[in-house]
Amino acid sequence: MGADQFLAMNGGDGYQSYAKNSAFQRGATEVAKEIIEEEISNKLDIEELSSTSPNIIRIADFGCSTGPNTFHAMQIIVETMKKKIETQLSVSHQMPEFQVFFNDRTSNDFNTLFATLPQNKQYYAAGVPGSFYVRHFPKASLHFAYSSCSLHWLSEVPKEVVDPSSPAWNKGKILYYGDKNEVFNAYAAQFAKDLDSFLKARAEELVFGGLMALLVGSEPNHTKYASYTTFPSLELLGSCLIDLAKEGLFDMAKVDSFNLPTYFPSPNELKALIERNQDFSIERMEILNHPPKRFTTPDSKSFALFIRAFIEGLLQIHFGIEIMDELFRRYEEKVEETKLLSNPNENSMTTFVLLKCKRMT
Amino acid sequence: MGADQFLAMNGGDGYQSYAKNSAFQRGATEVAKEIIEEEISNKLDIEELSSTSPNIIRIADFGCSTGPNTFHAMQIIVETMKKKIETQLSVSHQMPEFQVFFNDRTSNDFNTLFATLPQNKQYYAAGVPGSFYVRHFPKASLHFAYSSCSLHWLSEVPKEVVDPSSPAWNKGKILYYGDKNEVFNAYAAQFAKDLDSFLKARAEELVFGGLMALLVGSEPNHTKYASYTTFPSLELLGSCLIDLAKEGLFDMAKVDSFNLPTYFPSPNELKALIERNQDFSIERMEILNHPPKRFTTPDSKSFALFIRAFIEGLLQIHFGIEIMDELFRRYEEKVEETKLLSNPNENSMTTFVLLKCKRMT
Repeated sequence: MGADQFLAMNGGDGYQSYAKNSAFQRGATEVAKEIIEEEISNKLDIEELSSTSPNIIRIADFGCSTGPNTFHAMQIIVETMKKKIETQLSVSHQMPEFQVFFNDRTSNDFNTLFATLPQNKQYYAAGVPGSFYVRHFPKASLHFAYSSCSLHWLSEVPKEVVDPSSPAWNKGKILYYGDKNEVFNAYAAQFAKDLDSFLKARAEELVFGGLMALLVGSEPNHTKYASYTTFPSLELLGSCLIDLAKEGLFDMAKVDSFNLPTYFPSPNELKALIERNQDFSIERMEILNHPPKRFTTPDSKSFALFIRAFIEGLLQIHFGIEIMDELFRRYEEKVEETKLLSNPNENSMTTFVLLKCKRMT
Repeated sequence: MGADQFLAMNGGDGYQSYAKNSAFQRGATEVAKEIIEEEISNKLDIEELSSTSPNIIRIADFGCSTGPNTFHAMQIIVETMKKKIETQLSVSHQMPEFQVFFNDRTSNDFNTLFATLPQNKQYYAAGVPGSFYVRHFPKASLHFAYSSCSLHWLSEVPKEVVDPSSPAWNKGKILYYGDKNEVFNAYAAQFAKDLDSFLKARAEELVFGGLMALLVGSEPNHTKYASYTTFPSLELLGSCLIDLAKEGLFDMAKVDSFNLPTYFPSPNELKALIERNQDFSIERMEILNHPPKRFTTPDSKSFALFIRAFIEGLLQIHFGIEIMDELFRRYEEKVEETKLLSNPNENSMTTFVLLKCKRMT
């Protein structure tokens, strides 16, 4: 299954939608706001950027989902750019016009995104469908790229982890849990390959000197082995799937063949991969101090909805739409019973990186 | 109701969709192909266009609906441009990259549009939601604009025709049928105003020298009075609504207050309005000789589906979704009974106009 066939976040704006269950992701943007403002103020050079397309600034959000988080982020970027440009404007220059491109996989609910675009937006909007691991824009046509809470989505599940003949076969589990290095390594290799594709595509699309802000879901720096990496909330979801298989709702082999296409790099790992690519300089990098999930989803019900909003599409394809309600009913119960929200290992880190394109296209 | 609240063509790709019931509209594009190819070959000046954005050609289709017609038209334009540019390429120039923007009202089914984008397209695609009577692109950012079978959709129903105190009140009818000059004049005035808004917006968005091809649903040149204008197929639909009102499915006042926001200008009228605007020169204008509806929708069933695909959204809002099946069942019967498809007045003309932007932004 190619990256673009994966189902995207839950569409619409109902109570199970991503739009209504993404306060955690919004938290990351909130915390990054100040850093983005500071960096644009310091690093944006309107003279340099405007050499390629006079009086138009083009911005893209890669992995935007349906809003409202993307609208908030784009507003921060456009407003900060305008403020900065005002200080640089000479008598002969007009304020540029802004065009914002919202990118996500083709299965993303663009109809909802478009219907909820802010009334008072200060830019012209466009939607761009397709996996961000390939090119979607003409060469040197973007001035600023942004991607938040999206790069942990791999282009595909590493083939080895669903291959019973491989030492990396991840039997009975839906993600690397830190107990089997082969599984972890397969995931890490897939992430490295995907990030490289992402950076190569963006390096061609951005103008020389263009900036890119990435907010990347991360885990603490690993030791040589993967044993620190645990995902209690996803292990719990995996255990619910096993329960349903044991009760005969589907075959256990269906659980064995399901793995999540997600990987959370450590900050050090991210840094090394970006440096290896060579198309970008790292202008700033830090771990965001944003509200943990126990604040944005304070009870088991809202936590289960949060997980459901971003994971249901994948589960539906594999296990069928008809078991979703039952699965998440049980999941909510287990989140409550296991006191998951107070588990110290149920942490989430987000790493912020600001990159500058140093590739001449 | 503003232009952007109108429901767009029927979405999806089911048997009642616009995608499956727009062979007539496709016919217009087929016939225009040769003219577009000829005009691009003669009039496209890559040196002039590339002064604004080196090596990127941006094209927009205004009122694209869901495809496949728009994909076909965009392919014709991109391929013809490439051929022309190849003949002008110097050693120091690369072939530009193409970016195509698909515009339609926000209620258009962009999800279906995106899911059905051609695999082998030779351009980067983006969707742009919103009524084409206002701006949607930065100044001087488009090189070619296209709009086919869309400009007959008014931004709103002329207020007078639904005002019982106005001499232009169109009681019991759903469109101007040529029997009441006040009604016709109200529609004509709305069209003139809307076309002016369209041209003003495009003149700002297009680069100086940019081309715009319009395929406009038309009626034969009027005399001073509107008495030649008749729409047997829409009169018939109006009569079905009256039948349902008489049977008590809704009040007759509901029919009185419903009018279609459509107007079909004559070629002379279109020419005069474009000349009045002054932002564009008319490079070519002719009436397309494309297959009439009796060829593209040869039986009453396919004809009823064709009408339904573009009109149902509007009817649903006003009369309710629940009567649609019954309404179009009866409509199909009446199309058969009245031998509508052999009625010589059930003609449709399409006027082709090629414009060149002469406005410096």
